[in-house]
Order: sequence, then C-alpha cells, then structure tokens
Amino acid sequence: MTDNIISVIKVGGAIVEDKEQLDAFLHRFALLPGQKILVHGGGREATKVASLLGIETKMVGGRRITSDEMLRVVTMVYGGLVNKNIVAKLQSIGINAIGLTGADAGIIRSHRRPITNGIDYGCVGDVDNVDAAALIKLLQAGLTPVIAPLTHDCHGNLLNTNADTMAGETAKALARYGACTELTYCFEKPGVLADANDDGSVIAMINRDSFNRLVTEGVISGGMIPKISNSLEAIDAGVRQVVITSAEALGNKGGTIIR
Amino acid sequence: MTDNIISVIKVGGAIVEDKEQLDAFLHRFALLPGQKILVHGGGREATKVASLLGIETKMVGGRRITSDEMLRVVTMVYGGLVNKNIVAKLQSIGINAIGLTGADAGIIRSHRRPITNGIDYGCVGDVDNVDAAALIKLLQAGLTPVIAPLTHDCHGNLLNTNADTMAGETAKALARYGACTELTYCFEKPGVLADANDDGSVIAMINRDSFNRLVTEGVISGGMIPKISNSLEAIDAGVRQVVITSAEALGNKGGTIIR
Repeated sequence: MTDNIISVIKVGGAIVEDKEQLDAFLHRFALLPGQKILVHGGGREATKVASLLGIETKMVGGRRITSDEMLRVVTMVYGGLVNKNIVAKLQSIGINAIGLTGADAGIIRSHRRPITNGIDYGCVGDVDNVDAAALIKLLQAGLTPVIAPLTHDCHGNLLNTNADTMAGETAKALARYGACTELTYCFEKPGVLADANDDGSVIAMINRDSFNRLVTEGVISGGMIPKISNSLEAIDAGVRQVVITSAEALGNKGGTIIR
Repeated sequence: MTDNIISVIKVGGAIVEDKEQLDAFLHRFALLPGQKILVHGGGREATKVASLLGIETKMVGGRRITSDEMLRVVTMVYGGLVNKNIVAKLQSIGINAIGLTGADAGIIRSHRRPITNGIDYGCVGDVDNVDAAALIKLLQAGLTPVIAPLTHDCHGNLLNTNADTMAGETAKALARYGACTELTYCFEKPGVLADANDDGSVIAMINRDSFNRLVTEGVISGGMIPKISNSLEAIDAGVRQVVITSAEALGNKGGTIIR
C-alpha cells in the first residue's frame, strides 16, 4: 500500500521551545499527507525548569543524567508542558492529535539502562519494544500520536528516553509490522553537510556504501555518525527512507535522503 | 445493556499526592468490573511546585486563579507529573491506561471563563462539550482513559478546569450518548455525613426531594450543596447513579448513593 505511508517525524528541542518556530513547524506538519506520528524533544526547557527548581543538569556525552528529581522535571516538561501545548495547537489547526508517552496505551516499553563504563545514567530507559499494532489502531481511529520522550518499564516506572532513538525504534517497529514507513529527523541544519560551515553543501543521498566512504574520508564525523548509522539500521529494518532535514523544510524537497 | 456499565471515577488531590494511598486506590480501581474512566485532581502538588518556582497560589472560593505562569505549572503537574505516573502505575497492574487532557483526541472543549462578579479567574475553562463518541472509541479499543483536569478551547489554548466538573460533564455526556453510566466521587470522607463530626453518620441515599429537605433542615450545607446539586443534575441527564464515597471504599458497598 504505497499510497498509505506512515510518516514518523522527529522534531528537536530548539524548535519546540520557540513558540513562533514551533507554530510554523506544526502548520507544516499538519499539511503532510497521510498518517503521521510526531516525536518531540524538550531538553532545553527541562534544563530551564530544573534550574528554576534548583536542580542541576548533568550531561554525559550529550545525554542527561536523570536523578529521581530530574525524572519529575522531565515528566512535567516533556509529558505535560511541551506535549500538551503541541496537542492543543494541532487541535486548533484541524489535526486530531493525542499526546502520549511510552506508558500511554503501553506503546513503548524500556528497561533502565545498566551502569555503562562506570556511568549511571539514572532513570534513563533503553527501548525494548514499540507496540506498532497499538499505534496503528490509534492512527486508524483518525488520531495523530504526539509522542514525548518518556517510556515505561511495565513496573510502574517512567524512564527518560532519547527522542531520536524513540523515533527510530517507532519507525522500525511500524516497518517490521508491515506498514510503509518513512522517518524524518528535523533539526537546525538543512541536512547532512559535506562542509559543516556551508549550509549549501547538503549531501543529497547516502547509502551504506557511501556512508562508509564518507566516514573514512572524514567528511562525516562526530555526532552525525551515530545519527546516520541509526538511520541505516532503520533502512535495514524495512523503513522506506530516512530524511535528515531542517524543521523549516519539512514537507518540501531537500535535505539528505538515506536509503 | 445493563451488563456494560461505564464507571466514571473522580479521585481528588489528597489521595493522588500520597504515593501509598494512590497505589492502594489504583489497585482498587483496577479491580472494578467493566469499562472505566478515571478523572484526577492534583491541586496540592501544583501549589507545591508553584511555590518552589516562586509563583504564588491565589484561590477564590476554593478555585485557583490561573495566571499564564500558573497555567504552565498546572499543565506540567496535572498533564505530566500526576497523569503519567498514574498511567505507568496502572500499566504495571494490567490496566491499559491512556492519559488524556481535554485537548487529547479533542475530548473536552471549554471556553475561558468570563470575568464573574469582578473576579478574573484567568486561564480557567468552563466545559462546553465532552466528545462521548471519542471516549467510547477509546474504551472499545480496550483502553482506560485517565483524564487530567485541563481542557482546551480549540484555539490552541489549554485551560485549567475543575476535576469534579469534568467528571460530572463526562458522565452526563456518556449518558446522553446512550451509555449506561455511573459516576463516583472519591474523597476523604466515607460519604455525605448527617453530622460532619461523625464518620458513622453517612446518609445512605439522597434524591431531589430528600436533598431539598436536608438543605432546609441545615443537615447539608457548605461545599456539599453544589456537589450534590451537580450529582442530581447528572441523574437528570440520565446517569444511573452517583456515589459519594471514600477512596478506601471504592468498589465496596457504602457511601452515599444519589439517584
């Protein structure tokens, strides 16, 4: 059913926390054809609220160390403040959105990350399972899931989970379930750049062969390596394509296509 | 279909904010037969978080004046912290819960309360409509809605809304839709008391006639008057019965039945 594509769209914290940018983004999201799922971040807002509450934010390798009190903050900010404002906005522009964490309808189960290389990330969850059937049931009811970066362990605990990972795992689960799925990562840059200082240097297409070559040549490096590596895994799992693009370009041609 | 009752259960802030009491309550809720919907409060926790953020809580007649910054707090606390922890707990005990505000799936629409008797309640919503069909669709999908006391105005704004009212309006909408509906208010007392100082003086049954008499005689007074008055309105709308009982007694006989 190529005419029935499910689009999984991830949007990051920088866009989510700027009301004007977010509104413009949500209008573009609303115009996307077909069934769609939005996965959002919110880390900067969480850091801000934590700071106001006198809770220090500790990051290791770009990941938040999530103490019990930080879990309360991210549950408030991701599951409440950010998620519910996105839902209310989408409702106002004709999208029948429903806000979810991984706990809601049991859609995403995880386990607490064990201490890794001596680092205890605290209340952080690594995804075990995405219930694609439950998501498809909601989509078929005409609902548009808006997913906050929190999962649950089936023992009553919420866990802080990386939104990129959740979007990737969601797309993979849908593809494995047989749904024609596309995954789009929206961030600040127009795509994967051949030259980090030149926004015009977007690499139009990457596959596993060209990825290996580009890494060897040093063109792709740093945080882009795991992002593209995860995207290629999604392709291996049956996701039709992964697009890395800017939030401003959602729904337009452009960005980097990974196949 | 008397064998297919939808139970709407309201539980207040005092129980919600005590982890042990809440866990015990949720176990009792899980054991209720048939389809069910939980509506929760969370005002005390909101007051606590607001205070930590340096935001003063102002109440008029037991209702929270909701400034823009207080709306952020209640969105975090009701929609995030309280709602998602209840959902995760219910998931862990076999209930396929889904957390909702009025914005999610568009279930409860409201309008901002106009200035009344010179009082501007701020971002407070008075309920216009409950989408019973949307709730029944979720129930039929095997989901148990857990509703936080927030609504939306269809223009992108969340509004703080009284949980008792939301539970009542939800039960009324379901009854009008043709569903066999019961409404239970769980609070600290074992029911409506003939003597406020004697927990053993629960009035077993109230109807409109006995209510008028009890008010005239001064047996029922204060905050109990609107509560029972709202309950009688629910009966008039077709709700099969309203029960006012303690959270500890949920699922047992006892409490005050209003018919």
